[in-house]
Amino acid sequence: MYRIGIDLGGTNIAAGLVDEQMRIIDRETVKTVLPTSLDKILDKLTYLVDCLMARNHLEKEHLSGIGVGVPCTANTETGCMEDADHLGFPGGPLATVLESRTHIPVKICNDANAAAWGEYRTGNYPSDSFILVTLGTGIGGGIILNGRLLEGVNYAAGELGHMVIHSGGVACGCGRRGCFEAYGSASALIAQAKARMSASETCLRNVSQIDAKSVFSGAGAGDMVCLELLDAYTTCLAEGFANIINIFQPAVLCIGGGVSAAGDTLLDPVREKTGARIFTPRSGRNTEIILARLGNDAGIIGAAMLGI
Amino acid sequence: MYRIGIDLGGTNIAAGLVDEQMRIIDRETVKTVLPTSLDKILDKLTYLVDCLMARNHLEKEHLSGIGVGVPCTANTETGCMEDADHLGFPGGPLATVLESRTHIPVKICNDANAAAWGEYRTGNYPSDSFILVTLGTGIGGGIILNGRLLEGVNYAAGELGHMVIHSGGVACGCGRRGCFEAYGSASALIAQAKARMSASETCLRNVSQIDAKSVFSGAGAGDMVCLELLDAYTTCLAEGFANIINIFQPAVLCIGGGVSAAGDTLLDPVREKTGARIFTPRSGRNTEIILARLGNDAGIIGAAMLGI
Repeated sequence: MYRIGIDLGGTNIAAGLVDEQMRIIDRETVKTVLPTSLDKILDKLTYLVDCLMARNHLEKEHLSGIGVGVPCTANTETGCMEDADHLGFPGGPLATVLESRTHIPVKICNDANAAAWGEYRTGNYPSDSFILVTLGTGIGGGIILNGRLLEGVNYAAGELGHMVIHSGGVACGCGRRGCFEAYGSASALIAQAKARMSASETCLRNVSQIDAKSVFSGAGAGDMVCLELLDAYTTCLAEGFANIINIFQPAVLCIGGGVSAAGDTLLDPVREKTGARIFTPRSGRNTEIILARLGNDAGIIGAAMLGI
Repeated sequence: MYRIGIDLGGTNIAAGLVDEQMRIIDRETVKTVLPTSLDKILDKLTYLVDCLMARNHLEKEHLSGIGVGVPCTANTETGCMEDADHLGFPGGPLATVLESRTHIPVKICNDANAAAWGEYRTGNYPSDSFILVTLGTGIGGGIILNGRLLEGVNYAAGELGHMVIHSGGVACGCGRRGCFEAYGSASALIAQAKARMSASETCLRNVSQIDAKSVFSGAGAGDMVCLELLDAYTTCLAEGFANIINIFQPAVLCIGGGVSAAGDTLLDPVREKTGARIFTPRSGRNTEIILARLGNDAGIIGAAMLGI
């Protein structure tokens, strides 16, 4: 049996055919094009499912389920998207309509939760408490406790990026000031780098080309400004991560998103600084901080494995 | 059948005999006297159990269990106290020794978790996600998800007071700066009040007598300095509570500890300011913020009901 996982994003809708070993064996992507509507999204999802089935000579009997990770609140009970206005429509019954079109069981899930589920299910972790924090345009979170995704009373739990770590600080898109996202996201790092462009001894020259990678590369090459930026950035990450650990004491805190590509240049200082901040430095069993392994595939694999 | 719940604190050890309606029908207290040892504590616990049993003409057959809430990490699997150095000893097998002395099953639990369990079990709440935040000398937390206490991989989860909300801010006993506890505890409010003593138009006169209640009473009487203190204090509480809600989206966030005695003077501004900060203002189903109902009895009742 196979499953299809779909990562519905604001730019692309990426679908993967996933086998029983949780590997993506075929994939197809279409553009999202915003603003959109529930009908247009359903047409694209149906196209992607049909495409993967036809190309792999599969009938619906060969597919045990379809999962869709959505960039908004996902009511996993009703299968409805909620609070999706940034996509161009308020929400609606994604799962039931897609199920009636494909005759295959459909589940939906928040996209950050899908990515966390993908990393968790493919990771062979010894424990069942696992938190994914994605450092990208924003900061997303997916929290797995006792082997289940934490959804909250309104299916909107896990907004780890919207935890204020510096009350009254940098303005965040959510309306508050000082959110973790405003200090720890890739966008925040880029903003900090651009603000330092005037420094004379830095390799950060072309404002339009600065990304998170430029800062990590510069730091690797010994650029003093990049080293300072990296130091301040990993300190902010440690503040947020220590908060998360003091609250949850999870077995694993996994760093995903584009920034995680920096590897040990990121991981080493984050581990050290977080370790110096947690409430339980002497505990024999503290949270392990690791890097995500699946990259952008986490959302597809996690969506495919929903409910499994 | 009856149960005995014991709240082991740094000042007192309070035991209660609890009936099947979760009411305390008799109680006894002894002084803790620090520094102490595991042996001394076990002697006091045994004395309290014997005392309640004798006075109520009970044999061990009438008691289905003893629960002890401890002011340190409680390894609920082994029944050992851990990281108890502030009491005068590193920890040890509290549950097994007390069980061998009383021949009654014993469970242990962190004290804040016990209080949360007590409020939750006696509250007839419609949902199974419930978070207690106690505002006292420090800020404690107990987190119940899917009807279970969140313990974390090392039994130390729920340190909501040690979530930094103001990076680099006021020094906290845990070694970090800017913890929620350093702004939202009763001690923090008292420190803020003392710092304002120099203001000329305030009723806060005698430094040694200032407590959280003086600030709330002064605010109720229209004292401008007290009103300003209350405004700043409830703003800090809202920052922390909005963080907790954005992370967990619990059905209920319950405010306990000494400060909760202020009632609506506290609750009304906290609800308003938290509501203005959460990530899901338009959700039809947001966290309800309420006041704890059991006061100091929560820890006794919760301990008695452990595992039930």
